[in-house]
Amino acid sequence: MTWKVGEFKGRDFLNTQDWSREDLEKVLECAMDIKKKYKAGQTVDYLKDKTLFMIFFNRSLRTRNSFEAGMTQLGGHAHFLSPQDIYTPALPGDEEAYTTERIADVARVLNEMGNAIAIRIYGKYAKYVYGRGNLVNQEFAKWAKIPIINMEDDVYHPCQGMADIMTIKEKIPKPQGKKFVMSWAYTPSTEKPMAVPQSASMITSMFGMDVVQVQPKGFDLDPKIIKICKENADRYGGSFEISYDMKSAFEGADVVYPKSWWSLDLVPPKLNAKEPDWNGLKTLFDKNKSWICDQALMDRAKKDALYMHCLPADRGFEVTDEVMDGPNSVVFQQAGNRLHAQKGMMALIM
Amino acid sequence: MTWKVGEFKGRDFLNTQDWSREDLEKVLECAMDIKKKYKAGQTVDYLKDKTLFMIFFNRSLRTRNSFEAGMTQLGGHAHFLSPQDIYTPALPGDEEAYTTERIADVARVLNEMGNAIAIRIYGKYAKYVYGRGNLVNQEFAKWAKIPIINMEDDVYHPCQGMADIMTIKEKIPKPQGKKFVMSWAYTPSTEKPMAVPQSASMITSMFGMDVVQVQPKGFDLDPKIIKICKENADRYGGSFEISYDMKSAFEGADVVYPKSWWSLDLVPPKLNAKEPDWNGLKTLFDKNKSWICDQALMDRAKKDALYMHCLPADRGFEVTDEVMDGPNSVVFQQAGNRLHAQKGMMALIM
Amino acid sequence: MTWKVGEFKGRDFLNTQDWSREDLEKVLECAMDIKKKYKAGQTVDYLKDKTLFMIFFNRSLRTRNSFEAGMTQLGGHAHFLSPQDIYTPALPGDEEAYTTERIADVARVLNEMGNAIAIRIYGKYAKYVYGRGNLVNQEFAKWAKIPIINMEDDVYHPCQGMADIMTIKEKIPKPQGKKFVMSWAYTPSTEKPMAVPQSASMITSMFGMDVVQVQPKGFDLDPKIIKICKENADRYGGSFEISYDMKSAFEGADVVYPKSWWSLDLVPPKLNAKEPDWNGLKTLFDKNKSWICDQALMDRAKKDALYMHCLPADRGFEVTDEVMDGPNSVVFQQAGNRLHAQKGMMALIM
Repeated sequence: MTWKVGEFKGRDFLNTQDWSREDLEKVLECAMDIKKKYKAGQTVDYLKDKTLFMIFFNRSLRTRNSFEAGMTQLGGHAHFLSPQDIYTPALPGDEEAYTTERIADVARVLNEMGNAIAIRIYGKYAKYVYGRGNLVNQEFAKWAKIPIINMEDDVYHPCQGMADIMTIKEKIPKPQGKKFVMSWAYTPSTEKPMAVPQSASMITSMFGMDVVQVQPKGFDLDPKIIKICKENADRYGGSFEISYDMKSAFEGADVVYPKSWWSLDLVPPKLNAKEPDWNGLKTLFDKNKSWICDQALMDRAKKDALYMHCLPADRGFEVTDEVMDGPNSVVFQQAGNRLHAQKGMMALIM
Repeated sequence: MTWKVGEFKGRDFLNTQDWSREDLEKVLECAMDIKKKYKAGQTVDYLKDKTLFMIFFNRSLRTRNSFEAGMTQLGGHAHFLSPQDIYTPALPGDEEAYTTERIADVARVLNEMGNAIAIRIYGKYAKYVYGRGNLVNQEFAKWAKIPIINMEDDVYHPCQGMADIMTIKEKIPKPQGKKFVMSWAYTPSTEKPMAVPQSASMITSMFGMDVVQVQPKGFDLDPKIIKICKENADRYGGSFEISYDMKSAFEGADVVYPKSWWSLDLVPPKLNAKEPDWNGLKTLFDKNKSWICDQALMDRAKKDALYMHCLPADRGFEVTDEVMDGPNSVVFQQAGNRLHAQKGMMALIM
Repeated sequence: MTWKVGEFKGRDFLNTQDWSREDLEKVLECAMDIKKKYKAGQTVDYLKDKTLFMIFFNRSLRTRNSFEAGMTQLGGHAHFLSPQDIYTPALPGDEEAYTTERIADVARVLNEMGNAIAIRIYGKYAKYVYGRGNLVNQEFAKWAKIPIINMEDDVYHPCQGMADIMTIKEKIPKPQGKKFVMSWAYTPSTEKPMAVPQSASMITSMFGMDVVQVQPKGFDLDPKIIKICKENADRYGGSFEISYDMKSAFEGADVVYPKSWWSLDLVPPKLNAKEPDWNGLKTLFDKNKSWICDQALMDRAKKDALYMHCLPADRGFEVTDEVMDGPNSVVFQQAGNRLHAQKGMMALIM
């Protein structure tokens, strides 16, 4: 065993890229060990009587339940906090007397009472300005001594990234050099943040996979993320390629991850407006209705290629029922790994 | 001791009638034992670090707090999930991108993360179509391997039924052949589901009581339930009778359970409409304002007859303060038994 | 050690003044001991598997998280209950069928299921009638055998009072005869209840401090509270003085506590109306914009005077950033003591 409980005590988890691959591998080993014990019915009270504060600006099924159950399974407890139940944490300049409270203050108060703070914020709660949700996470991290955990902001979803690579490694123990396809897919609802594909491409490129990032024109990822993925490829011996053709991208893939996201061109701050250009997004999305992951597409990938999705999936749009419920789909194992990967991470930082 | 923890591991609890009387008696014995230990201040960690997911579409005081405290008292933890905080679980055909998530997916995700799922759904959340709430419970049960617990749907309230029979048995150790009166009572609010009287009549007839089901014309229970009650009477040596006269029904009763419910005739799908006929319900209800459980009525029952109610009771309409707070009332013991009966059940299935 | 766990089992905590100073000192000793163990990473399962029901009519960050984390740290669990999720507890006369439930019933139900009930209610949830929130707490206390804990009503905030005196004692081990200034301060939002200053003046006068209560004309505390403070001063050897001049009040102070509250003259029942006189309040508040705690004011107090605030503070109005984040500020220690003081209290009464 190469890890120990509390080994990274106090460290934030805002983005996988802030961590070394070696340290992330320790998290994964701890996660695998915890999972084995969980399946065997063994309890592990690594975080006995400890408290995680979860602040959810946005809806959540997997994230909330995996963190809350995860804390229970480690002997502690997680608070479910809706912003309207507390004084809504606000950046300087966004404060409103008796309704909001400056993040600097919220962070330092919770810091006295428990052991970590986890935050989910994107979309309208971040005023639709790409990067502003991430600022909230950074502001918390600046003020709290206890670790801040990013439960998805508008740039990163590192907990999903960890569950993704954990699932891949369970199925493909040596992912180095295997083909991972992060693909855009269609859905009729256009409010679709970037965090999942960005974190997936970063983590798979860090683990040496041959990453293909494929989307229709206009749906490119944040250039800063693309740069990181390229650097990862160079450093860890994989490759990173951008494509605009779904069919060819799927050829010979070991893992495919088709899901929807919106266009940074039609969202502030790149778009000079107060809100996303909803009509423009709808038009752009609807031009690409053919981007659905169906069996014909899966047949281009390797026979035992993994079909992945962070869920919820928009069935009938992003993916057909046949694929989602078919033999290649690992989506429920992947969802379950949210639980174990996060327990591994919390056991080391809290 | 005839039961053991985990004896029925994985079994759903959707309706008492799905279980044999023998198995339900094991649940009750376990519940009685747990209650004795609770009163003596002993802790029993039968479900250490285990997780119950509670999805509440409707309000709840007793159900929510008894399940949540019950899990704590068994060493585990219950998540309180409002549909608006997660992606609202939806039947196929009711899905809406980014707001709902297909039950098949919700069930299989939670299945990976914890140990049981409990659901409360009726009324508008089941689109006011009688039986649709129960379909939601069944759909969860179809997809999750972990047990599904019905916390009240539009047909059944098996947890209330268990607390009811437990309370009766505490007061009347041999209920066989004792007279149980399930009576309609008036209230000015007409949104009153059927689950409580239906589950009460089923469980008391299964335990061999002489059940009298009494209501004004137009308020008959679901014919399917009546059939089950009759079969229970035949099989377990009790009797089942339908009456439309409150006064005569109360004569010589050992237990009375007067509460309001609405009319299946004025509710979809029997009513061919999108919503209940609220005006028709109001008129039908208001014709029966005299159906109040007062002391004069209690005087017709046996001197030490039990007055029961699932609560909340509409004081001054369903029942007078004199009766509710009088010596025959066992309503708070009954509410407390929600806690213990459910702990007994969870200890055996989770 | 002069206290023992469960020593005051069953006692309510509605107002510090209902308790003797000797008993409150036991609570503080227990709190200090628990805090020391917490800082050393030791767990203390004084309330193993016990349940606290928290009913929050109003928002809360500190109170909710300190009670919930506090229960976890003592081995138990706290339920977060919003009135809209349960049947809203109502005083007789305020009931509404199927939406509310009489407090007498709510209290007696929860009494069967767990170990204490905590309530926060003031402002619109108490119909803006000063004293009505406190009536709700009293009504719960009348019906439940398990302890009722006041998490802030419209008259008292005893848990804040305990954290306040605990913080003072940590910094000034012998507060007897030290100057404590409870000062009004300006804020643009006028909905500001009285509970914090009233509880702070009562507890500091009970601990023998020289209390100066300072505010603009029209912002006097409840005469009943002033009478208690004077009696405390007589009995415990301190003093109690009322002032209307912020600058002179701060002279030579050992502790200052500047915060906003509204005017009882402009609020029912003293104001004969259904709602506060919002315009009148705004006008009265805005006449006193100069009541801000800035460095110049702090310079009048002793060099190492403590700056206290219950939080959230309206930065830039009640206090400047310079003072709030400056060397005299103990606000985060004070917030942290919410946790420990409440754990001390719960360990003795639950």
